[in-house]
Amino acid sequence: MNTPQNKKTVTAAMLIIGDEILSGRTKDANLAHFAEQLGAMGIQMREARVVPDVEDEIVDALNALREKYTYVFTTGGIGPTHDDITADCVAKAFGVGIDYDPRAVAILEAHYPKGHLNEARMRMTRVPDGGDLIENPISHAPGFVIENVFVMAGIPVVAEAMLESVRVKLVGGKPVQSRAVNARLAEGQIAEGLGAIQNSYADVSIGSYPFYAKGKFGVSLVLRSTELDQLDAAEADVIALVKSLGAEPIDRGALMQGEG
Amino acid sequence: MNTPQNKKTVTAAMLIIGDEILSGRTKDANLAHFAEQLGAMGIQMREARVVPDVEDEIVDALNALREKYTYVFTTGGIGPTHDDITADCVAKAFGVGIDYDPRAVAILEAHYPKGHLNEARMRMTRVPDGGDLIENPISHAPGFVIENVFVMAGIPVVAEAMLESVRVKLVGGKPVQSRAVNARLAEGQIAEGLGAIQNSYADVSIGSYPFYAKGKFGVSLVLRSTELDQLDAAEADVIALVKSLGAEPIDRGALMQGEG
Repeated sequence: MNTPQNKKTVTAAMLIIGDEILSGRTKDANLAHFAEQLGAMGIQMREARVVPDVEDEIVDALNALREKYTYVFTTGGIGPTHDDITADCVAKAFGVGIDYDPRAVAILEAHYPKGHLNEARMRMTRVPDGGDLIENPISHAPGFVIENVFVMAGIPVVAEAMLESVRVKLVGGKPVQSRAVNARLAEGQIAEGLGAIQNSYADVSIGSYPFYAKGKFGVSLVLRSTELDQLDAAEADVIALVKSLGAEPIDRGALMQGEG
Repeated sequence: MNTPQNKKTVTAAMLIIGDEILSGRTKDANLAHFAEQLGAMGIQMREARVVPDVEDEIVDALNALREKYTYVFTTGGIGPTHDDITADCVAKAFGVGIDYDPRAVAILEAHYPKGHLNEARMRMTRVPDGGDLIENPISHAPGFVIENVFVMAGIPVVAEAMLESVRVKLVGGKPVQSRAVNARLAEGQIAEGLGAIQNSYADVSIGSYPFYAKGKFGVSLVLRSTELDQLDAAEADVIALVKSLGAEPIDRGALMQGEG
C-alpha cells in the first residue's frame, strides 16, 4: 500500500461500476461529490473510469488504478443480485480468497427480521480476505476496504454515507484551494493574457472553461494551488486581465455550465 | 481502423478530458447523452474515462481506448487557451504531425470580424495530419475525426451538436432494446428469482438497480437485448416474478434514482 504520509501529493481515482451508467439511463452522481469532499481533505481526484458489469473489465481497471493512485474508491455492484460482482472482482484483482465475513453477517442478522436473511442477501456479507468493513448507516449492508481500495455502494445516498464512514481512515496532503473568476468574455480574447499569467505562476494551475447561458458564451477562469499567497497573487492578475479587456468579474450564479 | 461492418457488436468509449470534471466543479453531462444517442444507433458504450489536462494521461488513455473499441469520442480541451492540449495529444497518440488546417482556418476567417482571428483562436484550427473536420454549428471552431477517434468540445451544447454532425459517419450494429420494470421491492427479495430468469435468457442482459426515494427503497429491473422476442419473454417473466412477490410494476416517474 502507498503511504500517504510520505507523499507530497495524495491522489485518488474512482472506479464507477455499472451497465446503467454506460447505457445513459443513470447519471453518475458520485464523482463530483467524492471529488469535492476528498479535495477538501487534500486528496486530489486524478482519474475516473466507468466500466460495465464484466469481470475482466473491473479487475483490469482496478489493478491499473490501485497501483497508480494513493486511494481508489469503487461504486456499484455490491448488492444481492446476480449482476453484483464487485466483491468477487476485487478478490480476484488482489489474488485473495473471499468468504462470508462474520462481522457483516452479524450486522445483517441484526437488521433483518428472522427468516429474511436469505441466500441472496447473504451475498452482501462476502468480503475478500484481509478486508475491513465500511459502515453503511442507510441500508446496513456494509462496504469494505482492502489495502488502498474502498468498495462502496453505487446509490448516491449510500455512497455518500459510506464516504463519511471512512473519512477518519483517509490521510490527506496539503489541501488545494481554488478561486474562480467568471466573465462575459470569449476564451479567444483572454487566452494570450491568461497564458502569460499561467507562465508566471508555476505553483498555480489555471483552467479556462467556457460556458454557454442565455444565448451567450462566457468563461470561468479557475485557479488552483496549495500555496495561498501564490493563489491570491494570480487571482489578482486574472481580475486585472479581465478588467483590461473591458469586462468585469461576474457571479455566474445558477448559469448553466460546461467545460471546454 | 476497425471496420464496424464486419463486427457483430459495435462499441464505443468516451474519453472525458478536463481538470474541472475531476475537481467536482463541473459535472459531466455528455456521457449519458452520447450513450443514449449511440445506443439507439446500435453502438454500445462500453467504457468511459475521465482524465486531467495532462499530456501523458490523455495520450495513454486514448491509445488504450482506440485499440479496444470501434469508436472513441473525446470531449474537452479543444479551445484556444493554454490548457487546451487535446489536439496535440491526439497527434502524439497517433504519431503524426499537427498543423493549421486550411479548411478550419477558412471557417474561422469567415466567422470572426477582421482582426479578431488572433493567435489564440488560430490554435483551434490545428488538426493532426490525416484528420477531417467535424462541423460545429454552435460556436464554429470545428472538432475533428482521425481514424476511429472523434474529437469534440466539452461544453454540452457544442458536443451534442458535433455528435449530430458526425451521425452519418457512424455505422451501428443491431440496436439494443431495453425494458424497465420498477417495483417497491427490496433487491434481496427478488434476487433469487431474477437470477433464475437471467439464467434462462442468454441473449438478454438483466440489471437490477436499487433506488431510494421518499424514504423507501425500490428496484429498477432493466432488461436489454438485441433480440426482441427474447426481450419480450424475459420481461413477461420479470413482471410475473414481481407479482408473485405481492408487488406491482410501478412508474418510477420523477423518483430519484441511483444504481447499486
